[in-house]
Amino acid sequence: MPTLRLALAQVNPTVGDLAGNAELVRRWTRRAADAGARLVAFPEMVLTGYPVEDLVFRRSFVAASRAALHSLAADLAADGLGDLPVVVGYLDADGPPQVSADAEPGRGARNAAAVLHAGTVVATYFKHHLPNYGVFDEDRYFVGGDTLTVVRVDGVDVALTICEDLWQAGGPFAVARRAGVGLVVTINGSPYELNKDDIRLPLVGRRAVEAGAAIAYVNMVGGQDELVFEGDSMVVAADGTLLARAPQFVEHLMVHDLDLPAAPESGTPESGELADGMRIARTRINDAGPAPAGPPAVGGLVEPAADEAEVWQALVLGLRDYVDKNKFPSVVLGLSGGIDSAVVAALAVDALGPQRVVGVSLPSQHSSEHSREDAAELAKRTGLDYRIEPIQPMVDTFLANMSLSGVSVENLQARVRGVILMALSNQEGHLVLTTGNKSELAVGYSTLYGDSVGGYNPVKDVWKTLIWRLAKWRNADAARRGETPPIPENSIGKPPSAELSPGQLDSDTLPDYTVLDPILIGYVDGDLGRDGLVEAGHDPAMIDRVLRMVDTAEYKRRQSAPGTKISMKAFGRDRRLPITNRWREHG
Amino acid sequence: MPTLRLALAQVNPTVGDLAGNAELVRRWTRRAADAGARLVAFPEMVLTGYPVEDLVFRRSFVAASRAALHSLAADLAADGLGDLPVVVGYLDADGPPQVSADAEPGRGARNAAAVLHAGTVVATYFKHHLPNYGVFDEDRYFVGGDTLTVVRVDGVDVALTICEDLWQAGGPFAVARRAGVGLVVTINGSPYELNKDDIRLPLVGRRAVEAGAAIAYVNMVGGQDELVFEGDSMVVAADGTLLARAPQFVEHLMVHDLDLPAAPESGTPESGELADGMRIARTRINDAGPAPAGPPAVGGLVEPAADEAEVWQALVLGLRDYVDKNKFPSVVLGLSGGIDSAVVAALAVDALGPQRVVGVSLPSQHSSEHSREDAAELAKRTGLDYRIEPIQPMVDTFLANMSLSGVSVENLQARVRGVILMALSNQEGHLVLTTGNKSELAVGYSTLYGDSVGGYNPVKDVWKTLIWRLAKWRNADAARRGETPPIPENSIGKPPSAELSPGQLDSDTLPDYTVLDPILIGYVDGDLGRDGLVEAGHDPAMIDRVLRMVDTAEYKRRQSAPGTKISMKAFGRDRRLPITNRWREHG
Repeated sequence: MPTLRLALAQVNPTVGDLAGNAELVRRWTRRAADAGARLVAFPEMVLTGYPVEDLVFRRSFVAASRAALHSLAADLAADGLGDLPVVVGYLDADGPPQVSADAEPGRGARNAAAVLHAGTVVATYFKHHLPNYGVFDEDRYFVGGDTLTVVRVDGVDVALTICEDLWQAGGPFAVARRAGVGLVVTINGSPYELNKDDIRLPLVGRRAVEAGAAIAYVNMVGGQDELVFEGDSMVVAADGTLLARAPQFVEHLMVHDLDLPAAPESGTPESGELADGMRIARTRINDAGPAPAGPPAVGGLVEPAADEAEVWQALVLGLRDYVDKNKFPSVVLGLSGGIDSAVVAALAVDALGPQRVVGVSLPSQHSSEHSREDAAELAKRTGLDYRIEPIQPMVDTFLANMSLSGVSVENLQARVRGVILMALSNQEGHLVLTTGNKSELAVGYSTLYGDSVGGYNPVKDVWKTLIWRLAKWRNADAARRGETPPIPENSIGKPPSAELSPGQLDSDTLPDYTVLDPILIGYVDGDLGRDGLVEAGHDPAMIDRVLRMVDTAEYKRRQSAPGTKISMKAFGRDRRLPITNRWREHG
Repeated sequence: MPTLRLALAQVNPTVGDLAGNAELVRRWTRRAADAGARLVAFPEMVLTGYPVEDLVFRRSFVAASRAALHSLAADLAADGLGDLPVVVGYLDADGPPQVSADAEPGRGARNAAAVLHAGTVVATYFKHHLPNYGVFDEDRYFVGGDTLTVVRVDGVDVALTICEDLWQAGGPFAVARRAGVGLVVTINGSPYELNKDDIRLPLVGRRAVEAGAAIAYVNMVGGQDELVFEGDSMVVAADGTLLARAPQFVEHLMVHDLDLPAAPESGTPESGELADGMRIARTRINDAGPAPAGPPAVGGLVEPAADEAEVWQALVLGLRDYVDKNKFPSVVLGLSGGIDSAVVAALAVDALGPQRVVGVSLPSQHSSEHSREDAAELAKRTGLDYRIEPIQPMVDTFLANMSLSGVSVENLQARVRGVILMALSNQEGHLVLTTGNKSELAVGYSTLYGDSVGGYNPVKDVWKTLIWRLAKWRNADAARRGETPPIPENSIGKPPSAELSPGQLDSDTLPDYTVLDPILIGYVDGDLGRDGLVEAGHDPAMIDRVLRMVDTAEYKRRQSAPGTKISMKAFGRDRRLPITNRWREHG
């Protein structure tokens, strides 16, 4: 049984940065070679970044991706790395886009993988199953492939697959079994969701058993607009046993020795048509390779983090990459003394360091003493750049020149704060962070162009009750490490208030969050209707009240900033609801 | 040859308003019966409105659509209309959504048509070809049908099809020929695009020849968020000759007598499998019907309007339906004296009447005398509710309390205007209209949370050069009708300026719009790359300058208001580009 030393490069590419991503592949291939690897795999579409969305329709972009792939093969050889087979994802096309006037049946853009070896592209594979749900639109972009690519490496037959191929039964994994391969490499751009790691591992195990082969699963890491990729790369044996698992949310090279069955002299079936509609294409790179030198390479088994730790890391990484990949020097946010802005500030400091975070206290006549103190205390604990900009003079000038009352006056204060933050952004170059949580966003408890102002919202997909849990976890974690907990206990403990009118509390307008959140989670995340919510034991009158708020807030949500997604049902791309819509479930 | 009196009901349903839409069908079926029609057809998904987007995933909504269909059949019979076969579009499902854990192969949600007769649903058809490009996501929502439904009405075999079935070769129309039908009814929710009417007519003619049958094409009319449906319903003979064509942008009942071949005693092939993978399902409603009474019904041939007239009507209808279907009492917008706000004001007055339009002049120290006069003149000509709210006191208070300079001061003025408009919206209930044109939006020449504030932008998809053409056309049209041209000539003639700093002109920052727009049209609407633009004869340095602006404005565009779409490439749903993206075509 040959022993193959595998390297899985869990790296962080940037969409559109073909040169930078190629450079990344060269750097990590060097590391893999130095570790004695005989095969190295990179994530789905690592060369272009993922997802590229409508860039697929730019012919110049497709041409650039193909050109970059061939240059990369040559550059790897020039680097002295030509001997090491490298699996990389890229964007390919074997015809015009399917939607164009000159489309050809069965041809078009492809979500592709290539094996680079000896300076050339020795094999390619086109993703077979295309996801078209949630954040995925791949039926819009790609044509599915119908050929399983099998590459012989060091005498082992290795099949290539891409992401969704793993998530649907049948297709490439079933064909891999019939082709008698020893290993299936699957390259992924699989976005983070809370608890997805708990689903992913058993799924990979099941597919390994289905294919009768070990699986090497490599996933992207990093933030891309609303998506965060977590890594969680792994190696699973043919019987489904987990052999190695990489850490989440960091770049990582996992090197692992795998004992794999030697392929027969010539694999059967040979290249050509198979009964179930897919073809096989076989390529031979080399037969028996050298035994690995030195001590055995062991990938290690990292336990996934607990929920709060996992979400915190996802939010930090999503924010950092949004800021850095878009080349913002720094961020600015309003500090109210409340829990949401405190958590966002702590996230921002963890993501960027305190020097790159500006926190602005924006007190009005309704701001309580404790609010000002809590904001200052947060600033002191985190070391961020703290400013105070009282809003009352501006608010008073508006009120002197217009006849406003009630909610208009409340919203005016939030909008003056928005103008100040945007002015600081213009003047000093900061990205404005929005701090509204998912519960607020769901029920529309915010001011359009007021507290919703900003270019990115790290907690857009975080329910209010989870905000509190995150704050407590982050403080406890700091305490565990002997550091100062960043979030003032008073911000965690006090009753939430917008402080836009005297003595105002969230509970004047909203149900208690411990009542509100479970209904919202059922309605939004769980797609439960009114009947389902009643069945789940919620009070019908309360359900009606909450659903009414959610349904009428669509218009505000459409104008909210992008933000890190931690669920399948973040507001934004995964929920596409008409604004003009008279459908109401509630009474 | 039997003569069948057809009625095509080009109506305006509302998404989600099942009860209201059913009522609409009953009312128009009554009109069709009164006109002696023997078959009446309503648009695609008329019962739910279209598109319903992720409402498809609400099981309660699917159940409500099916229940509404059956109630409608019974109600029509109770109305004494049970004799008249009625074709209606609705949402159906014969299994859980395809993306759910309990999905069944080949089953799921359906974009469906039903024939209602004698109080029951006598036949159904499931859309075969699903569009999944541009604004369409139907692969996300529906499973395509594999059965052609043929209904015998007054001795004529009539096949049912839905929208995209017409736009792709093969499929239902090819099967209709083999089934020997005399008429194909196609029900549509086909959104308006400039010049689509020029493509639609020859396409319908071609499909008629392909099917060897007459085609009755009925399309929806009305606005739904960014989409406008134009109607343009028509009847085409089996040889492709246009027989009748309805007006655009208005509800209309087209009644037309068609001489159609009598079906044989029993059609062949019978219900069952056909060679090319689709089945046929035949239903017999009645054999030879009565000859039409009275004079022949002639649908008439309305010529589509000229480009400017067509776009104007589209923008008016899109705005009116957005405001009315969402139940806004009125709109408010800033009047700068410039061409964009003048055109939006004229559109709003045409859509809603002057009593429902508030125009606010928001002068600063940089506002020229002519700007104030032009705004006042526009108000006088249109009769809208005119206000003046000087912004200088608020701007000065911000400047006294913060250290701002340069662009920050320019943007501050735009944001103070935004705060005032939103305050008026809060205080009085108006929807704020945004007035930025597509050229501005493309290059990011606007202030985020300033002039971009608002809930709807009627000219979001209108290039600046087209704004001028629309203004001239609207004025000339008024003059032709002996009415006061609404737009002051000076607003049309003067050089465009944002008036945010002394003597500022758009041309300080942007190329002349006659240079800018053709490049933008090639890059955005035409998906041309840099090479294609150079080939088209544009100056390479100018191309680079423009492309750089477009590529860096994505972040602002993501936060813009929805607005009426008149092209295949409006910013918004039909262009999905990553914000974080390093790909640059330009030098």
